[in-house]
Amino acid sequence: MTAYIKSVEKLINEFRKLPGIGPKSARRIVFYLLKLTREEILEFSKALVEMKDKVRFCSICFNLSEGEMCSICSDATRDRKKICVVQNVSDVTVIEATGEYKGLYYVLGGLLSPIEDIGPEEIRIPGLVKRVESEGIEEVILALNPTVEGEGTAMYLKKVLQPTGTRITRLASGLPVGGDLEYVDELTVGKALSNRREI
Amino acid sequence: MTAYIKSVEKLINEFRKLPGIGPKSARRIVFYLLKLTREEILEFSKALVEMKDKVRFCSICFNLSEGEMCSICSDATRDRKKICVVQNVSDVTVIEATGEYKGLYYVLGGLLSPIEDIGPEEIRIPGLVKRVESEGIEEVILALNPTVEGEGTAMYLKKVLQPTGTRITRLASGLPVGGDLEYVDELTVGKALSNRREI
Repeated sequence: MTAYIKSVEKLINEFRKLPGIGPKSARRIVFYLLKLTREEILEFSKALVEMKDKVRFCSICFNLSEGEMCSICSDATRDRKKICVVQNVSDVTVIEATGEYKGLYYVLGGLLSPIEDIGPEEIRIPGLVKRVESEGIEEVILALNPTVEGEGTAMYLKKVLQPTGTRITRLASGLPVGGDLEYVDELTVGKALSNRREI
Repeated sequence: MTAYIKSVEKLINEFRKLPGIGPKSARRIVFYLLKLTREEILEFSKALVEMKDKVRFCSICFNLSEGEMCSICSDATRDRKKICVVQNVSDVTVIEATGEYKGLYYVLGGLLSPIEDIGPEEIRIPGLVKRVESEGIEEVILALNPTVEGEGTAMYLKKVLQPTGTRITRLASGLPVGGDLEYVDELTVGKALSNRREI
């Protein structure tokens, strides 16, 4: 499209690389940015680089952190006998948003996958086992996605964590709150049925 | 959410300001950006500032440009007797994408709106009239949105351009290509009916 100029085209392409942004959204965003002041653009640009420069990973749980230890690991009020195991750093914020959990975390950074050649070392499982043993963890909550890889990783974790004697739990599978039986897939309804509880 | 760190939160807020990006998309984008290398982030950040620094508006048609004149106004192969009037710079690229138009443009930058106190001067209408007169334009194509403000602006433009003797046309209203009568609103079907053509 000849109407585009190089610097605009380049920025549209940068936005198109982002997840969930197609060519039309990218164009819309860039035309919106064109209307902003230079100061606003500079702030955006600075926020990008600052995030990259400041963010590191917690040496204990591999959550995002601006220091050696993340805000959760260094929080003395948290229950230090529980570890919630998640796949990604973004999952930590999902669990935190519930307000229901006050323990610690461990971010695997992935799931076991023989096809992609991802074994226990790649997703820091030995480090988790060591932590459970040395810190006398009483419960490990597996908050992994209910997918084939998630199930496989959970099964493996159960196997290697059992010898430590810790309690191992998983997030419940069942109907989403506010969901409608008619629109929920049959596997989920099946899980909800077999996990049914007394009321 | 305590799991977030300041620099990450700040960037999420920057992304949330963009059109079509909600809190979940912003979070997803920022976690994606965290995985990129510093060089990739720098390139993104540079593209933002460069776009702002390099882009200006064409002194003739107010399209985006990196110089005094945009690539369309300075293209000698274009039909210099036709002007297509659009609301925004983004509309130029929409018309260009069709490949059906080889004339020049005029970007109003808005539409007449008594409520918002936008009059003919605010949307550069006097400049358009002057251009039509001095350049001996043979056709002015009004490519404005088929909304109340678009219609109003088109009517006003017709009134002020008629004395110049130029031909004034509008984009056709009717059924979208590939559309389904059942799903098209009745106003559009009505327009399609009154604008029906011999086949």
